[in-house]
Amino acid sequence: MKKSLGSCATIMRVNPRRAFVFLIVLCTCILSFSFWSRCPLNDQQQTVRESSEVQGSLDQSVHFRNRNANNYDVPAEMEMAGGGSSMHEITCEINHEYSVQCRREENEVYMPFSFIKKYFEVYGEIQVSEGDEKFEFSHSYSEVHVPPEVIRPDGIFMSFEHYNVEIRKRVKCITATEGVPVSTQWEASGHFYPIQIAQFGLSHYSKHLVEGKPTVTRLITGNDLDLDLWAYSSSKTTARSLFDRTRQSDVIQFKTSDSLSNTGLQYELKEKNNFAVTLDFKMISNGSVTASLKSDTYTFHIHYVFSNTLISCDGRNIFFGLGENRRGKWIHLARDVNMDLLKGLALKCSKHRKMKDLTFLGLSIRGQGWVDNVTLASAAHMDHFFDAANWFVNHQDSRGGWPIKVTRKLLSGVMELPPGWYSAMAQGQAMSTLVRAYLRSGSKVYLQAATDALKIFEISSAQGGVKARFANSYDWYEEYPTTPSSFVLNGFIFSLFGLYDLKQVAEGQALETVTRIYNEGIKSLKAMLLMYDSGTGTFYDLRHITVGIAPNRARWDYHTVHISQLLQLSRMEDDPLFMRTAKRWQDYMQGKWSTHN
Amino acid sequence: MKKSLGSCATIMRVNPRRAFVFLIVLCTCILSFSFWSRCPLNDQQQTVRESSEVQGSLDQSVHFRNRNANNYDVPAEMEMAGGGSSMHEITCEINHEYSVQCRREENEVYMPFSFIKKYFEVYGEIQVSEGDEKFEFSHSYSEVHVPPEVIRPDGIFMSFEHYNVEIRKRVKCITATEGVPVSTQWEASGHFYPIQIAQFGLSHYSKHLVEGKPTVTRLITGNDLDLDLWAYSSSKTTARSLFDRTRQSDVIQFKTSDSLSNTGLQYELKEKNNFAVTLDFKMISNGSVTASLKSDTYTFHIHYVFSNTLISCDGRNIFFGLGENRRGKWIHLARDVNMDLLKGLALKCSKHRKMKDLTFLGLSIRGQGWVDNVTLASAAHMDHFFDAANWFVNHQDSRGGWPIKVTRKLLSGVMELPPGWYSAMAQGQAMSTLVRAYLRSGSKVYLQAATDALKIFEISSAQGGVKARFANSYDWYEEYPTTPSSFVLNGFIFSLFGLYDLKQVAEGQALETVTRIYNEGIKSLKAMLLMYDSGTGTFYDLRHITVGIAPNRARWDYHTVHISQLLQLSRMEDDPLFMRTAKRWQDYMQGKWSTHN
Repeated sequence: MKKSLGSCATIMRVNPRRAFVFLIVLCTCILSFSFWSRCPLNDQQQTVRESSEVQGSLDQSVHFRNRNANNYDVPAEMEMAGGGSSMHEITCEINHEYSVQCRREENEVYMPFSFIKKYFEVYGEIQVSEGDEKFEFSHSYSEVHVPPEVIRPDGIFMSFEHYNVEIRKRVKCITATEGVPVSTQWEASGHFYPIQIAQFGLSHYSKHLVEGKPTVTRLITGNDLDLDLWAYSSSKTTARSLFDRTRQSDVIQFKTSDSLSNTGLQYELKEKNNFAVTLDFKMISNGSVTASLKSDTYTFHIHYVFSNTLISCDGRNIFFGLGENRRGKWIHLARDVNMDLLKGLALKCSKHRKMKDLTFLGLSIRGQGWVDNVTLASAAHMDHFFDAANWFVNHQDSRGGWPIKVTRKLLSGVMELPPGWYSAMAQGQAMSTLVRAYLRSGSKVYLQAATDALKIFEISSAQGGVKARFANSYDWYEEYPTTPSSFVLNGFIFSLFGLYDLKQVAEGQALETVTRIYNEGIKSLKAMLLMYDSGTGTFYDLRHITVGIAPNRARWDYHTVHISQLLQLSRMEDDPLFMRTAKRWQDYMQGKWSTHN
Repeated sequence: MKKSLGSCATIMRVNPRRAFVFLIVLCTCILSFSFWSRCPLNDQQQTVRESSEVQGSLDQSVHFRNRNANNYDVPAEMEMAGGGSSMHEITCEINHEYSVQCRREENEVYMPFSFIKKYFEVYGEIQVSEGDEKFEFSHSYSEVHVPPEVIRPDGIFMSFEHYNVEIRKRVKCITATEGVPVSTQWEASGHFYPIQIAQFGLSHYSKHLVEGKPTVTRLITGNDLDLDLWAYSSSKTTARSLFDRTRQSDVIQFKTSDSLSNTGLQYELKEKNNFAVTLDFKMISNGSVTASLKSDTYTFHIHYVFSNTLISCDGRNIFFGLGENRRGKWIHLARDVNMDLLKGLALKCSKHRKMKDLTFLGLSIRGQGWVDNVTLASAAHMDHFFDAANWFVNHQDSRGGWPIKVTRKLLSGVMELPPGWYSAMAQGQAMSTLVRAYLRSGSKVYLQAATDALKIFEISSAQGGVKARFANSYDWYEEYPTTPSSFVLNGFIFSLFGLYDLKQVAEGQALETVTRIYNEGIKSLKAMLLMYDSGTGTFYDLRHITVGIAPNRARWDYHTVHISQLLQLSRMEDDPLFMRTAKRWQDYMQGKWSTHN
């Protein structure tokens, strides 16, 4: 039905309050031409005239009421009183529901930001620089990270160099067995969440490309053990260099007591900047490796021991399990001891929580075995990256997937996934990780795993796969393959990124398959993308359409992920839709909403 | 990708400003439990502690920055200065784009409503009652009209008793030939817009049911001409009662000069409340009927003459054409002379615009002919209703439609309809009108016209009909059958209302057809309704999805139409979806948005 503001006027006849409102609307229209000027009185009289022309003969009283409806017009009695320019209190009645104390100065009413903030979900803070204070009002709290200009399957992944996965509270720790994060999300006891593992790998990969090779200090090389640096704790400790046939290189053979009370073969440090330790070792006794750190005035010991306990603590001692069955084998260990301490403190054995003025005091090696390539560096990004990639190779199931072992309740009682579900996002992020590992290492086992990961994309959600259909017309790869479908946007796009990466390196049948799956996905995305545009922001998923409930609006940091993804898509696909939409979605972050009719 | 606020923290590492924002967000979370209390300092310290626990060792400087990030925390130097409780000016910087002058009182910042109003599109006005002033803040300007409890095909149509179609500026006038509105929308020269004609009929029908029968004053009945009331202007004027064979009743035969300068057979009035005139007459000369009205101090004459000119004016004389070829035939004329004067003034022959203290001075009949049943009443709703219904019967084309003769540009260059398009809404609103005319009159011609109107629903937009398909899955009856489809919500629902009305009275094949078309429509509506939910309001159409552009948000008075329609649907269909959605959409009008994740 085409209905103009004019039609509002008629309703005054039955409902006087509409007269006020009608004027305010007209006034707003008039004002919309001059953004900053407030309703000038003559504009408003004009408004009154117009409407009374229409109304006069129908309802004389409307004409009078209109006069008082001028939005900022000073009420008659105040005009007589002269008004005055002083600020005074005035009660703001909000939607006839509750009141807020406001201020009035002449014809301007001032509303408290504490109200505005909560009512409109906006942000603000007082800033002081050089004595000048100002109030910074911001519509959103999040920022858009711009992906690289050129999208390469061996390049930085999106803007993941900004991510730090393991620092998140829901990451229990990085295992000492495989060097991957353990998630406590949705299951406090912890589980391996492939998406988290992939993001851990991709963030370290991207950081490596941005930061470049770290400067590495060698504390031990196989043919060199500087006994001025490495202290013997007791006469029982021996250490010497010899050739190791299995490694075909010189290594250090050592023998100390296994006891943790014994400092073993010890290297003293006063390191404040570099906390990444890597070493290769093999032990035939119940030995251990210990990193000692001082925070504030307290000293903590992080022990890497041959146990199957993921992480535990005792006072200021923190234990990471290397796995019982790994004695007698060469182990490559790469630890961020700073992070390990952080996760250890989170176990709350020690009252001490803060980490201030952290100092890496030293490293101890105990037991009987061989050690090589002990290094200290600012970071060991590529070690962490390959730990993640190897996890995907070692834990892929026969269907080519990485089942998620916890229950996921996207919408309690309506959209729930029992343990063992697959995620298109996990499959895709794994592909992006594995393709990079393949290109870095040249090892086909990574490429094969990435290719095998395709199979799940062809299995429908109903059959335990990830493929959903919208309106029986569009394929959609589900981050959460619920029934009814949830159509989570960012997870779907991440799965497309994985397919895109694989498409760049796949060959033969695999190339055909990945191209078909990718193209179907892009077709769906182009058709459905605008369903996520709320006109003021974006929706996280389409649960409102599939279940018939309130839309699940994306909070600003998902909204910015959507924007970053569109920017990346605009570089992958030759369609102006993506850049055009990204720009508008950025405008929403400044409160520039889409227009209304 | 599942991403928690915790993950924001990591970004502090690369982007200090995020640290502030991160705290504001956390603070907002904490506060969301106690709506009114402002950020207590200890909450904020807590926040600082939490984040510094995570951040400390990574970025010492973050910890310091956090201290100043407390949203309402008074900057150190001001604390020392004691702050003071006085109001002072502070510049509000909006999204780093522009500035607004705000006020600060201790730790509260006050923003001017003139800014809030335009930024957030909200409304407010100062109200004064008994000397107390308050500021009424309202999120929306529109109001929801609740449809009748029981939906009947002969009942009030929705809440159309509140409508006054003809008063709208885009209604040029009500024709004196057929008694229907002429629209100047989209075409200044004017055209017959079936939707407007149906709404004119349905609004008068609904007003009649609400207001009840008007009190009618008979000025003439066929067998009674009170010469004390009816003045003869000259000796040439004669008038007498006689029996009319064609009407099978007594009528008044009259003979006066045709000249407008001659007052003819005149009835004097001093009427201030009743402006609805009805009469039956037949003329064999170039006669006329004139209504004289006084507004303020000016007298206007409205002449109904045998011309084909729709409406014209000359000074204070306004002319409505009865049609040249209607001489010698009995004419039933029903006029709201108040409305006719309003439309006449709009032609701007007279400088006089306002209509104040309107007085109906009298009625004149000139020429040679017969007249009967001259009445005066407050309204002639049913006359207007049947004028509309008859127009649909007389102007339906061979396809059962009412083609719209003007170009409609819904989206310039993208969604345009050349003259001759059909509208599902026009078809549906015509059905609602015709079904009521049938039930009131018992005349099958109305039912037949309503049934014939079904055909257009089965023709696709591409073939010049109104049927669109969404995602090749759902039938949609288009108010504007554009290609690409526009999927205007309110027009589609109005078309369903028409189908529903017909379904109540149709029989046999027609019943089967209308039931099938209606059920398909309802199925589509249930599947697609939530696509119009923006989480803060509604969308007018789905152009954003079909064209890939910004959503066309519905302004509040369309939003309230959507709500009224859902309320009506909840009475027609046994599905909680409609009432549930209506309630949420009403909440949006109070600024109660859907939640974000």
